[in-house]
Amino acid sequence: MSKNKKISMSVVRRLPRYYRFLLELKNNGIYRISSQALAEKMGASASQIRQDLNCFGGFGQQGYGYDVPKLFDELSGILGLDSRYSAILLGAGNLGRAILNHVDFASRGFELKAVFDKNPEIIDSTINGLTIMNSDELYDYCNQVKIDAAFLCLPKDSAEQMADILYNCGVRGFWNFSHYDLSMKYSDIVAENVHLNDSLMTLCCCITENRRSENAED
Amino acid sequence: MSKNKKISMSVVRRLPRYYRFLLELKNNGIYRISSQALAEKMGASASQIRQDLNCFGGFGQQGYGYDVPKLFDELSGILGLDSRYSAILLGAGNLGRAILNHVDFASRGFELKAVFDKNPEIIDSTINGLTIMNSDELYDYCNQVKIDAAFLCLPKDSAEQMADILYNCGVRGFWNFSHYDLSMKYSDIVAENVHLNDSLMTLCCCITENRRSENAED
Repeated sequence: MSKNKKISMSVVRRLPRYYRFLLELKNNGIYRISSQALAEKMGASASQIRQDLNCFGGFGQQGYGYDVPKLFDELSGILGLDSRYSAILLGAGNLGRAILNHVDFASRGFELKAVFDKNPEIIDSTINGLTIMNSDELYDYCNQVKIDAAFLCLPKDSAEQMADILYNCGVRGFWNFSHYDLSMKYSDIVAENVHLNDSLMTLCCCITENRRSENAED
Repeated sequence: MSKNKKISMSVVRRLPRYYRFLLELKNNGIYRISSQALAEKMGASASQIRQDLNCFGGFGQQGYGYDVPKLFDELSGILGLDSRYSAILLGAGNLGRAILNHVDFASRGFELKAVFDKNPEIIDSTINGLTIMNSDELYDYCNQVKIDAAFLCLPKDSAEQMADILYNCGVRGFWNFSHYDLSMKYSDIVAENVHLNDSLMTLCCCITENRRSENAED
């Protein structure tokens, strides 16, 4: 891929799904697939797939299709999954613990270095091999260890406060589970937001919309 | 809103954020806001806001702006947040527990009726006032109680198996944390997917892209 070519955010959002499908194909011993067959598997159009994969130079050969392991490797590279970005997690409550137990950081390009919380009852206890540190030590820690990304499993107010410290220490990547809109204040960061409550509201809205259409049809 | 008018999915996805901002304004005693001021608060353009809110008839008055409490009520209605959709949660592991403890179902339009798991060690234990039921009882339960939505906090294989049972029992709403693509098999369902691993990969990709651009500029 050309070093200067930026992939659009809409394509970036679709890449993890390509990654999952290609991994499954590879694990099932399928080494070659046409854009048509991949499209059917993924419930997308073949032209969409060709367009997306062309974005990063993954050209299929006419009459041959895509070389699955090659495409998979290329995609892993684009995603940067072989990186070891240093990361910390803030907030070891229910959500933070679930993230710690549920997500495989290493295969997603991150190395989790430390976990912080402000609750005295859990500070110094161990979770997934890491000792939970006091949030008061965050500033000193981040000035000693270069941190690429912070995972914010905090309520909005704490997230706001901690984001300031992290930003001032040079952290520019955020996986944000709070409702604090980081990008509004900091324009030069990368923030990936997971708003669980918003997601559930969206489901509620879609169910409600469906009911309305059904009632309208009656 | 006209009963027949469907709101586009891209607008639906933005509604929870409007809801959050309007709730904050309301809680801060702000009863009137111009599209321009709302746009600045939300980091969007005023024309985008006017366009979105017009979708469901939330017309601001020229020279007056939007009536915050009225718009908030209207939005809650569109989202269906006063509904009591009956829901069950499947998978009371780390992720399921975090969802149970972290999300306020009632204010998002859902009533959580039951929790299921297949792990004998936790079956019959209590979580958030609900006794964890054996997954083997799912079919019988869903045939007795009308369930509107299932929250799938399961690995892919279990999700696939459970989705079949749920679909056959008439469940059509899914909050899906697994990597199983429900919509590929069932076309008449509503599925809201939260792919945590995909989200972290997206962050990794964005950080990697930024590094590449920086290196290219050097």
